[in-house]
Amino acid sequence: MDYTAFFHDRIAALKAEGRYRVFAELARHAGHFPAATRFVDGAPQPVTVWCSNDYLGMGQHPEVLAAMHAAVDECGAGAGGTRNISGTSRHHVALERELASLHEKEAALVFTSGYTANLTALSTLGALLPDCLILSDELNHNSMIEGIRHSRADKVVFRHNDLDHLESLLAAQPRERPKLIAFESVYSMDGDFGPIAEICDLAERYNALTYLDEVHGVGLYGATGAGVAQRDGVMHRVDIIQGTLAKAFGVVGGYVAATPEICDAIRSYGQGFIFSSALPPAIAAAAQASIAVVRRTPALREKHQERAATLKHLLHEWRLPVMRSPSHIVPVLVGDAARCKLATDILLDDFGIYIQPINYPTVPRGTERLRLTPGPHHDDLQMRRLVEALAAVWRRLELAAA
Amino acid sequence: MDYTAFFHDRIAALKAEGRYRVFAELARHAGHFPAATRFVDGAPQPVTVWCSNDYLGMGQHPEVLAAMHAAVDECGAGAGGTRNISGTSRHHVALERELASLHEKEAALVFTSGYTANLTALSTLGALLPDCLILSDELNHNSMIEGIRHSRADKVVFRHNDLDHLESLLAAQPRERPKLIAFESVYSMDGDFGPIAEICDLAERYNALTYLDEVHGVGLYGATGAGVAQRDGVMHRVDIIQGTLAKAFGVVGGYVAATPEICDAIRSYGQGFIFSSALPPAIAAAAQASIAVVRRTPALREKHQERAATLKHLLHEWRLPVMRSPSHIVPVLVGDAARCKLATDILLDDFGIYIQPINYPTVPRGTERLRLTPGPHHDDLQMRRLVEALAAVWRRLELAAA
Repeated sequence: MDYTAFFHDRIAALKAEGRYRVFAELARHAGHFPAATRFVDGAPQPVTVWCSNDYLGMGQHPEVLAAMHAAVDECGAGAGGTRNISGTSRHHVALERELASLHEKEAALVFTSGYTANLTALSTLGALLPDCLILSDELNHNSMIEGIRHSRADKVVFRHNDLDHLESLLAAQPRERPKLIAFESVYSMDGDFGPIAEICDLAERYNALTYLDEVHGVGLYGATGAGVAQRDGVMHRVDIIQGTLAKAFGVVGGYVAATPEICDAIRSYGQGFIFSSALPPAIAAAAQASIAVVRRTPALREKHQERAATLKHLLHEWRLPVMRSPSHIVPVLVGDAARCKLATDILLDDFGIYIQPINYPTVPRGTERLRLTPGPHHDDLQMRRLVEALAAVWRRLELAAA
Repeated sequence: MDYTAFFHDRIAALKAEGRYRVFAELARHAGHFPAATRFVDGAPQPVTVWCSNDYLGMGQHPEVLAAMHAAVDECGAGAGGTRNISGTSRHHVALERELASLHEKEAALVFTSGYTANLTALSTLGALLPDCLILSDELNHNSMIEGIRHSRADKVVFRHNDLDHLESLLAAQPRERPKLIAFESVYSMDGDFGPIAEICDLAERYNALTYLDEVHGVGLYGATGAGVAQRDGVMHRVDIIQGTLAKAFGVVGGYVAATPEICDAIRSYGQGFIFSSALPPAIAAAAQASIAVVRRTPALREKHQERAATLKHLLHEWRLPVMRSPSHIVPVLVGDAARCKLATDILLDDFGIYIQPINYPTVPRGTERLRLTPGPHHDDLQMRRLVEALAAVWRRLELAAA
């Protein structure tokens, strides 16, 4: 076995397929999002970022930065240990209280990332519950799939958002068998919503727990930004809400909110929680400050929705193939990995517009796309320039119009 | 199925066994480590922390905090996306360069945590290499075990640090079969070293990759703090070095350093890497600043070793059952979960000394212990008070002397 040659070949295969990922090296400028500087071999180029998941620009909000600075001065850089071994600060405790309050649950538990939150919560719940069956939407995020796999529980996949299929699977099981339905509120690559109320109806009828990933919903939907379940008036019916601090809240980390019993079980048995160093107190403080701002500022959410609607309208006008999405996520279809990459290279190099190509395995082959995430800080002029640049690239590459 | 009752019972079982974890709520005070304030129902109590993994106190180093502040002002709070989708900043690139340079490798890759680094790197390597066999030390950390399990590769466990056993397992395999030996440089709960040179000898003889977890070694051993492999003069012989930014470097995050081919394969195929939001640029900047200080300051490592030796000597003098450990980790045997918890409760409540009990599953049942981590900032007076308090608790609980 020649290990180096082997790994070289695996990378070469990605390159041949046009799926090799080249990371854009950026400097974001606090106070000036979505403007950023890109570096190519050290040389700077001004760019506008159109693919960030810092949906509301909270990563540059003065209250967030002030909270982070204050906690660095007070507590230092890191937490100093796992949550159990010297790593729990007042800021972690306060953040978990804030998250529980946001979701109107009695408890919450913070993880180092949303990925770890899903991985650990699902693997722990599935492993603890005896003979548990996990029912999983076919478009669930990789972190949920891996958590379910890791639990070793039985899994069945139901067709995306298909309530009849889900019900037929539930009805085939004994009522007493532990069951958990895992799904999302906003599917991040297509931008469609999960039918939360209807899934809660089924869960109640068939005695299943509900596990809802609100990663792309928290901060963005509902009266106080608690997510789509809040908007739909069904937050109290969802057993476990999972979310992130890295997208609408603009910082980093993940969490679950649920009953004290469920949070305590994950806290006590979840390996990815037990054996990870805690988030820095300054991160917890920044996240808490961000949540507080987002909760009290519906205008941020209104502006966010308006910007997304405006961009979709413009794309339609220009006959660019915007995919149907009822949410803030604006996907534009390319349908081929190599041309998707090429389109974004041209946008970046020639137009200073930064959009990352979304290729397999993040989306199925043949549905490769640009995924635009307009936010409150993208102004009309930037939007106009974006659409003009897209139109020019569509012409140059002879991509399909809408 | 009554879910709430079920989870309640699982927690009650932990409590009955004395293994229920109660997190101490702390405020660490930058500039005054290891002093901290503990909060009990909101009431403050001054404590000295003796169980932090911020081994060198770098979490309060002025250069680290200055770098973190500057990057918050410059870039904001979060990274804004995964590494691939708008989340790569100049600070990430510079940090990876610094880590590669530290370990004298050509490349490095940063993760949100050391846990995710092990989980993702091992699961990816084990899954990519066709018919891979992973040989794993029986005392490897949970994150390595989970990474290996997740890879679905064949695994054999060799007895802790047992070279004959490891060789017999290697010799039984065809030379051409891909093999990876996973082990640690410092086993974190016993404090003993792995035989790195000898394992590299075996790996070369039998054509295996070596994967070394230096989580408790980096920053602390070797001329520039690159770890035990550097101290032993064998760093260049280890294929993949995994480390953390959360312990000796005092911040948060994990990494691997290896060849460009291996790092690129993990970067391109590793799900826990691809699908996680990037660390905040300010965290990357703080970590890089910390590494730079640690590399150029051998005096920190000398003081760290002196403090550990002094504490071990004192514990021996006072006939406290310090376990044999050649490293900076100082375990003191209790041997029972409930009394281990009780001892630390008394130390905290009556003496203001904070040490977390280490119980199963972190260590085997019957070897429950206090794990002390003296550092450069623990002075003679604090050490004297610690040993006096331990002796008082040992008498009160009639625990076994050395």
